[in-house]
Amino acid sequence: MTISSSARAKLPRLRDKTITLAHGSGGQAMQDLIAALFVSQFEGQLPTALEDQARIPLAELTAQGDRLAFTTDSYVVDPLFFPGGDIGSLAVNGTVNDLAVSGAVPRYLTCAMILEEGLPIDVLKQVVASMVTAAQQAGVKIVTGDTKVVPRGGADKLFINTAGVGVMRRGVTPAAVHIQPGDAVLVNGPIGNHGATILVAREQFALETEIHSDCQPLNGLVDAIVTACPAVRAMRDATRGGLATVLNEFAESAQVGIRLIEDDLPVDEAVRGLCELLGLDPLYLANEGKLVVVVPPDQADTVLAAMQTHPAGVHSRVIGHVIDGQRVALKTGFGTDRILDRLVGDQLPRIC
Amino acid sequence: MTISSSARAKLPRLRDKTITLAHGSGGQAMQDLIAALFVSQFEGQLPTALEDQARIPLAELTAQGDRLAFTTDSYVVDPLFFPGGDIGSLAVNGTVNDLAVSGAVPRYLTCAMILEEGLPIDVLKQVVASMVTAAQQAGVKIVTGDTKVVPRGGADKLFINTAGVGVMRRGVTPAAVHIQPGDAVLVNGPIGNHGATILVAREQFALETEIHSDCQPLNGLVDAIVTACPAVRAMRDATRGGLATVLNEFAESAQVGIRLIEDDLPVDEAVRGLCELLGLDPLYLANEGKLVVVVPPDQADTVLAAMQTHPAGVHSRVIGHVIDGQRVALKTGFGTDRILDRLVGDQLPRIC
Repeated sequence: MTISSSARAKLPRLRDKTITLAHGSGGQAMQDLIAALFVSQFEGQLPTALEDQARIPLAELTAQGDRLAFTTDSYVVDPLFFPGGDIGSLAVNGTVNDLAVSGAVPRYLTCAMILEEGLPIDVLKQVVASMVTAAQQAGVKIVTGDTKVVPRGGADKLFINTAGVGVMRRGVTPAAVHIQPGDAVLVNGPIGNHGATILVAREQFALETEIHSDCQPLNGLVDAIVTACPAVRAMRDATRGGLATVLNEFAESAQVGIRLIEDDLPVDEAVRGLCELLGLDPLYLANEGKLVVVVPPDQADTVLAAMQTHPAGVHSRVIGHVIDGQRVALKTGFGTDRILDRLVGDQLPRIC
Repeated sequence: MTISSSARAKLPRLRDKTITLAHGSGGQAMQDLIAALFVSQFEGQLPTALEDQARIPLAELTAQGDRLAFTTDSYVVDPLFFPGGDIGSLAVNGTVNDLAVSGAVPRYLTCAMILEEGLPIDVLKQVVASMVTAAQQAGVKIVTGDTKVVPRGGADKLFINTAGVGVMRRGVTPAAVHIQPGDAVLVNGPIGNHGATILVAREQFALETEIHSDCQPLNGLVDAIVTACPAVRAMRDATRGGLATVLNEFAESAQVGIRLIEDDLPVDEAVRGLCELLGLDPLYLANEGKLVVVVPPDQADTVLAAMQTHPAGVHSRVIGHVIDGQRVALKTGFGTDRILDRLVGDQLPRIC
């Protein structure tokens, strides 16, 4: 995303209504697109001397912690816009959350777009605006990027990759391998909303629901958690594959079992109803603003209280405990145990 | 790219022959794919405790310099394999080079793949193997990643995003704005080979040529340059849009003119022949292993000598000088000046 000063000077000027191959050529049209769309909107985020790389003083990072966290995710969600968010807010929050659950303070993001020829420029504008808002809310900066255009049919509308760096606080090292029998398992609110939203938004069903995505940044909530409990064992955001997948990953990594109490699982009524109608399990539906936290048993109350004071954690609950064994099980309302296996096959493609 | 220890234990086992939607679901099939393909091949590159983020000690970085360089690029090249490289080597070298030309030592890369349902697993294996080899050659590590699958027709085969971090050496800050009239402009060898290779590889022409891509890492060459001349004004790799585009970016950023001498431009005979046949200009053809270097006039000989001692710079040349004005011009063999404008429109889509 190299912008010349003269390109900056002539902002905003973009006569095209749709993306053409020239917008990915490296030439004048690409400069104009980047200037009009990205530079004007990311104003104040991008460094002043634009080169192909962001340049970040290491002293600024070492003041905040002792390790760099580095992550990446591509976003291919279909449709691009859905109740509660869009591919832009998803791309920012998803990567912010990947950094946050490592115990890091998310700091800087990249933004790489693959655009399909023919994409309306107005769609792109809306997505970029959404990224800017999401970045501001999460307190991160988008500092560099890339734009590629593929001919019509070579991609579906718009894909975004965001990579992110953050700083891990000294003494805070959550990791699945630290989980021990006896630990408490918490979640910050109702599960399955993002997956249910995308399902409905696909318009494969003539359903009217109130469901909207839980897409939100979790770094503020993580601040509250690690302040209350620096010895937090593990955190992970429950995205693709849902809560059950994260718990299976935890169980396998730490060689433990996990037992959930079905009655303690927060699921919104509308999501529960949709799942019953379609034969889906909210435990396997994607979330985009939910994290699973594992803490030592004597810290559970403190952490729960800290989570509930944060807007993103008002509906937090203890949902189960770590046990000996190697399976994830759900104690049902009838008192029986149901094994929660890993997801086999796909529940829903292009969920994020 | 979260891998459980049990998934690690059962490497390699992958019965599927093609990519299915389940490989992007977050469930068991995705774990198996990641374990069999990425973990087994990136062995020794990935950190041992696999979480969704790489965790890098900041002390390791501050020992090497004072600023973090951070960059991203998506790769959508078509075809995936071409003489001299493939999308995998391109994705590693492209991002390594973006970091290197900032004066940084490239260190860590991410790898995010968007796969089309139906992609042969063998193709993916070959691309991953190529990334591993390229990373080893460049001395960087691929430390985290992401895999998304879109339904057939939602993307064309395989797209890769690599983001990268590197460490900028103390006292070395190349930037286009530093360029001044009088400075010398150098390039490390023949131009246009990558673009010409992709053109021929598209099989739109029944041509037999010896042309192959110049896809290569440039960080070793940059080491030689900044050691010889820490005050290097600017460096940039001449990818999309070719040499002419980089020079136009330089001219606009620094508000200077640049004058090239046509007879001093290195162009391979085969590339020149292809360009004459098709009416193309090698100055606008993409490169994937060529950088433009601008240095103070009294440093030109020293830098040229340093470049020529490195394998990636054997054919380096001084190709022109910075002048007053604001245009990039080429002094032709006939003694006339030809203006090299920015590329308008696209010369070739999906070149990288």
